[in-house]
Amino acid sequence: MAEYRLSCFAQSGNAYKAALHLQLAGCDWEAVFVDYFNGTTRTDAYRALNPMGEVPVLQHGDRTLSQSGVILDYLTETTGTFGPQGDDERREILRWLLFDNHKLTGYLATHRFMNTFMDGPDASVLTFLKQRAKAALGVLDAHLDGNDFALGGRPTIADLSMCGYMFYGDELGIDIDEVAPRVARWRDRIAGLPGWQHPYDLMPGHPLPPDPETERA
Amino acid sequence: MAEYRLSCFAQSGNAYKAALHLQLAGCDWEAVFVDYFNGTTRTDAYRALNPMGEVPVLQHGDRTLSQSGVILDYLTETTGTFGPQGDDERREILRWLLFDNHKLTGYLATHRFMNTFMDGPDASVLTFLKQRAKAALGVLDAHLDGNDFALGGRPTIADLSMCGYMFYGDELGIDIDEVAPRVARWRDRIAGLPGWQHPYDLMPGHPLPPDPETERA
Repeated sequence: MAEYRLSCFAQSGNAYKAALHLQLAGCDWEAVFVDYFNGTTRTDAYRALNPMGEVPVLQHGDRTLSQSGVILDYLTETTGTFGPQGDDERREILRWLLFDNHKLTGYLATHRFMNTFMDGPDASVLTFLKQRAKAALGVLDAHLDGNDFALGGRPTIADLSMCGYMFYGDELGIDIDEVAPRVARWRDRIAGLPGWQHPYDLMPGHPLPPDPETERA
Repeated sequence: MAEYRLSCFAQSGNAYKAALHLQLAGCDWEAVFVDYFNGTTRTDAYRALNPMGEVPVLQHGDRTLSQSGVILDYLTETTGTFGPQGDDERREILRWLLFDNHKLTGYLATHRFMNTFMDGPDASVLTFLKQRAKAALGVLDAHLDGNDFALGGRPTIADLSMCGYMFYGDELGIDIDEVAPRVARWRDRIAGLPGWQHPYDLMPGHPLPPDPETERA
């Protein structure tokens, strides 16, 4: 059994944040496939693992951790990578983790999910989410003016968190290159890190099986 | 000048999280009124203070901190109150801070804002936000079965963060007592802490001035 076990699936950018950290740090890890699209996260068994009903979940020794930001924080300690140097940097990372969860991933991921995986999403809700996502992208874009990464010259878990959904391309329904060109360049900078892999290569479950409804049609 | 200066306004539950910590810890602090409803957070001067354009902002000595979760974390250190004991508790607090920003405050506050302060909010968006907020309240409600506070027997910044919007009553458009009775009892437990004050008493800007549009009508 691998040292780290990550419950995840390919379409989850939140899981990707943790998977990418494990990958870039060269950890001995394995993916435990969570069949989200067939309801696994709503089962009692999964809720026992994570009462919040979300991926990712990291298992390491006798620890079980959820919330991508908690897992990233934990991995900075166990792997010695992508972490802060001192309390000021720790809080600066926390600032971006919170912004990511509240605003950036919060709206970008929800918009992408409805845009890509829902039948007949409500147009008003899509518009609402897109406006909020664009505003968050604008904040990050402005911050990256003169900064290669969130904390300046080197990548940290702030970047690994915020980039979680940035590689899903057209699924996002927002053209990052057009809306936030500095974010696009930062995304490409992360893709250039040694060992980087796309979420659809790094985690199981892609492509989705054909929709049985569509098959019958 | 007071030792701590908090940029805030009465209607912001995110600012209240920090104000309540300062209040309960007995700090020497003062509120700096941010006239959100007249556009202050969109001015260049405010963006220079916080490029994310949000309240709260805490100024302490030569530090300027934003994001409520960062401020709460900082205050655990400077005041020695509501903090973790050890790394496991620190991560458990972080788990709830992230859940709060992503899901609980993320949806509850946005729903309340549109429900209370927007003219003619889109009904589909309100429904979407309400469903998400109720799901998050359900997660917290289940967790509080047998726990007085997020970490068990004593209040921490996880509670101060998650309770940020819980005292706005009918403005929420969700009846917490009905939807999540354990959350309601936990909210009342927090209101019973020595020194507790309602956000409309603790921060400036309430009640809102009459809407000039309405005045003219």
